[in-house]
Amino acid sequence: MSQFFSSKYSALEPYTPGEQPRDQQYVKLNTNESPFPPSPAVVRAAEAEARRLQLYSDPESTELTRVVAEHFGVAPENVLMTNGSDEILNFAFMAWGDKNHPFIFPDITYGFYPVIAALNQIPYREVPLQADFSIRAKDFCGVSGNVVLANPNAPTGTLLSVAEIEEIVKTNPEHVVIIDEAYIDFGGETCIPLIQKYDNLLVTQTFSKSRSLAGGRLGFGIGAASLIQDLNTLKYSTNPYNVNRMTAACGVAAIRDDVYYQTNAAAIQANRAYTALSLRQRGFTVTESKANFLFIRPPKGSGEALYRSLKARGVLIRHWQKARIRDWCRVTIGTKEQMDKFLEAVDDMMKA
Amino acid sequence: MSQFFSSKYSALEPYTPGEQPRDQQYVKLNTNESPFPPSPAVVRAAEAEARRLQLYSDPESTELTRVVAEHFGVAPENVLMTNGSDEILNFAFMAWGDKNHPFIFPDITYGFYPVIAALNQIPYREVPLQADFSIRAKDFCGVSGNVVLANPNAPTGTLLSVAEIEEIVKTNPEHVVIIDEAYIDFGGETCIPLIQKYDNLLVTQTFSKSRSLAGGRLGFGIGAASLIQDLNTLKYSTNPYNVNRMTAACGVAAIRDDVYYQTNAAAIQANRAYTALSLRQRGFTVTESKANFLFIRPPKGSGEALYRSLKARGVLIRHWQKARIRDWCRVTIGTKEQMDKFLEAVDDMMKA
Repeated sequence: MSQFFSSKYSALEPYTPGEQPRDQQYVKLNTNESPFPPSPAVVRAAEAEARRLQLYSDPESTELTRVVAEHFGVAPENVLMTNGSDEILNFAFMAWGDKNHPFIFPDITYGFYPVIAALNQIPYREVPLQADFSIRAKDFCGVSGNVVLANPNAPTGTLLSVAEIEEIVKTNPEHVVIIDEAYIDFGGETCIPLIQKYDNLLVTQTFSKSRSLAGGRLGFGIGAASLIQDLNTLKYSTNPYNVNRMTAACGVAAIRDDVYYQTNAAAIQANRAYTALSLRQRGFTVTESKANFLFIRPPKGSGEALYRSLKARGVLIRHWQKARIRDWCRVTIGTKEQMDKFLEAVDDMMKA
Repeated sequence: MSQFFSSKYSALEPYTPGEQPRDQQYVKLNTNESPFPPSPAVVRAAEAEARRLQLYSDPESTELTRVVAEHFGVAPENVLMTNGSDEILNFAFMAWGDKNHPFIFPDITYGFYPVIAALNQIPYREVPLQADFSIRAKDFCGVSGNVVLANPNAPTGTLLSVAEIEEIVKTNPEHVVIIDEAYIDFGGETCIPLIQKYDNLLVTQTFSKSRSLAGGRLGFGIGAASLIQDLNTLKYSTNPYNVNRMTAACGVAAIRDDVYYQTNAAAIQANRAYTALSLRQRGFTVTESKANFLFIRPPKGSGEALYRSLKARGVLIRHWQKARIRDWCRVTIGTKEQMDKFLEAVDDMMKA
């Protein structure tokens, strides 16, 4: 830290992204990436757009916004495209949170929420998950602050129903409810249709998981036009050209190639079922996940020991040093081949 | 604005990007883009990287940072790569500005500075340019706040020497001086070497102008390692994967293809000299620009009239409704052919 760093940020603890190893080839199951590459149409779109990079991107992402709006059956003024969904989450915290308007989220959830709350000096309250790591919807009904919920939740994978989400939105008319659907395409039902009925709901999604564009940085939010306007005010005050040309073109191509991505999502769900069953047979505890990962507790030994022994065997998964989940690890679901290598490493470890 | 929008942002006036017309083909000289496409190596790099987009980008932009550091003769810990230079400017205002640490910049400069100051609730003071729109270095020596200067300045194009910059940096040891070198490659001398001597200097640059990557969104800052650390704390709290894979690969290829871009920058300087001379012959006032644009005042009529009559003739330039520069317009320097079309439109207008 320099002597010039503002005291308002001096206690900030930044988010720690998952490891991106460069030293050897791992079976990489630690950052919830898709094991499938983008569709050929996406690669062609990127290449074509690269030839025009001397021109600024469209600050309104007009075509991409229209295509996404059509895909989800909403109007373009209900949509904001962003540089990953982290950007729209940050705008949302900024727009609707301040010292009189706290944020409320589960104690175990996406680690970025407390970081952006702290960054923006917004007070927040963490509501403990149930003992089985599920979210009790009632805990978020009629609360005194904005709500943000990952659905399915991370790193636990548990899902709330659209009816439960609606109850939360309906009972908080004075606050905004943000539903982060980063993992919705792996067996969940989106609550986007609710935005037609409620002006206090923002649904965010990303192209990073089911649409194989983690490295392209593309996210979006869907909500009432008035909410989207708030977010646009912040976007034009920080990053007017937030979505680059190549990524915008990739996004359009990805939406048009939906069957390719749905097929991949179905394969991941099949591999998830296979992996969960295999782990339970080996004595692991596995939460009921509707995401492209499993949250698992080994039959003996700590989560960190599991993480370390798998890493030593060339398989990378994720572990957090956080009291309540210290015994657990998160495993991204990859191809059948990757999951077999993971299970082999587990077997090898259990023999040792 | 929604009923939920935080009162702290309710008076915010966002930045207005230059028009991105979609209705007809213009000679587009309004947003300081390069008239030259990226080099073929950049297009190939984008296409190759698009095949790997299912994987997150490297949060540290390791290779790109190394290549940029080498190019400028600094260490990797002196460099931060960002999603356009707007992102690093925003981080810099956040990091070093607060109610006790105002920012100081010219009254006529890049319109984004007052927007990000307001966004972050940082007080700022605007120092009037000289009558000829030049910056008097002395006005920024030993001041009571952080300094940000575009060099060359926008939209005026005037340049401060490295010696003048050094005097400003040296006389403000208690504050950070940010030199925004977005336009440095068109005849200016970079002050990057000064970072070895001063721990309160951040130099920012962009790939948007001389490196034909406006649509890719790539900027960077170079400064003391302690300053870069401050900015990284904010980056990891908002946007850990800020540079996408394709853009990072394009950036590496662009630095390696430096001769291509230097050749283009030289052509733009030649076209700038030709255009300035041609306009002065027609009675225009033209500032001494070292950037890829000219700041011009027509011999009669307002700046807005000039902007409108050229737009009616298919040539887009930029005009601001701001008291001191209302009579002026900014014209981006394009190819010789584009500048001839611009001059034809000027002649046609003057005949009318």
